[in-house]
Amino acid sequence: MSKPILYGPIYSTYVRTVRMTLAEKNVAYDLVNVDMVTGEHRSPAHLRRHPFGRIPAFEHNGFQIYESNAIVHYIDDAFPGRRLARADLHRRTRDQQIVDVINAYGYHRIIVRLVLPYFFADKEKGPDLAAIAAAVPDIEHVLGAIQDLMIDSDPYLVGREISFSDLYLAPIVHYLMQVPEGGRILPKLPRLSSWWLAMQQRDSVTGTLPKAQP
Amino acid sequence: MSKPILYGPIYSTYVRTVRMTLAEKNVAYDLVNVDMVTGEHRSPAHLRRHPFGRIPAFEHNGFQIYESNAIVHYIDDAFPGRRLARADLHRRTRDQQIVDVINAYGYHRIIVRLVLPYFFADKEKGPDLAAIAAAVPDIEHVLGAIQDLMIDSDPYLVGREISFSDLYLAPIVHYLMQVPEGGRILPKLPRLSSWWLAMQQRDSVTGTLPKAQP
Repeated sequence: MSKPILYGPIYSTYVRTVRMTLAEKNVAYDLVNVDMVTGEHRSPAHLRRHPFGRIPAFEHNGFQIYESNAIVHYIDDAFPGRRLARADLHRRTRDQQIVDVINAYGYHRIIVRLVLPYFFADKEKGPDLAAIAAAVPDIEHVLGAIQDLMIDSDPYLVGREISFSDLYLAPIVHYLMQVPEGGRILPKLPRLSSWWLAMQQRDSVTGTLPKAQP
Repeated sequence: MSKPILYGPIYSTYVRTVRMTLAEKNVAYDLVNVDMVTGEHRSPAHLRRHPFGRIPAFEHNGFQIYESNAIVHYIDDAFPGRRLARADLHRRTRDQQIVDVINAYGYHRIIVRLVLPYFFADKEKGPDLAAIAAAVPDIEHVLGAIQDLMIDSDPYLVGREISFSDLYLAPIVHYLMQVPEGGRILPKLPRLSSWWLAMQQRDSVTGTLPKAQP
């Protein structure tokens, strides 16, 4: 069995989700940078890995996978160690729901509408604060919906063991907390706040900090 | 155990995916219409079931679920009968990838950019044929990517047994084949064409035909 290869830039939250998954499973891997700023994700070499030119892409023993949901479930099933899929049907369902809510609403509201406008703000004009202010209620709404889907919260999103939803949400909340609104939004959600404190203690979080802003 | 309840309009491809899932599992259920044309999906009653005001929503023994991925996996696990999740890791991964490709690219390119412009065309001007023509290469691209992910194709997307990806793709291809471009696009993809012929024979397809166009 050869080491798997993960393709993508470390600043991507989806790449970090896969890195955290590999860290939680204690899987050694090679990381190949595919820089989206330089357009490398649109190169012929990367389009052979991912026909839609996105990241991450993944390869293990010649089996190529794109789309992060498929990648993280593959890793959980292909490698021994800590089990990320929950055995209990209700917990597993809530875990999947939270992942779907993040993919359908959370990423766009938090990263696209709040974080990126700060990180890529016009150097002279600064970020569009009116557009950012308009995003805040939608972000409070999606994080409230995620908190409502939590089970037990002792300490992870669907229980005492870490699972896929934790690995999707943590990289996004990491960036949320780097902009001014984050420090005002998260404290209003006590169970998610406790979750974030617990997550920050994990080696899979501290060992995958992006070195640069997106 | 009470009968599950599915909330949503029968013209929605995602509602039909859940109906087909229930049909394949031989599960009796109640269907409650939530009409998106009249805005019923934004009603307080429905927002309690789905905080983002979308469809489908699902309930079983008081356990409420929204987001179709979570719903179909719950149904597969909660009820006896035909197993939709594949036991083989590679087939299961390709199945998940095809579902993710449909959700991330396929639905938007086929339904939003091709089918809905025909169904909701201005009665005097007709559909925007330039925009529709621009969608065709992107639709060929996504269907080609799905065909590339097929395993064996004998006769279903990831093998001899029907699985989740079949249940996501069939309701979308059903609408694709109702517009002129569909009859030109699908025949270029021989393995997907054979798949569509096989799918049309299944009771879960013939028993869930939408009565009205979306």
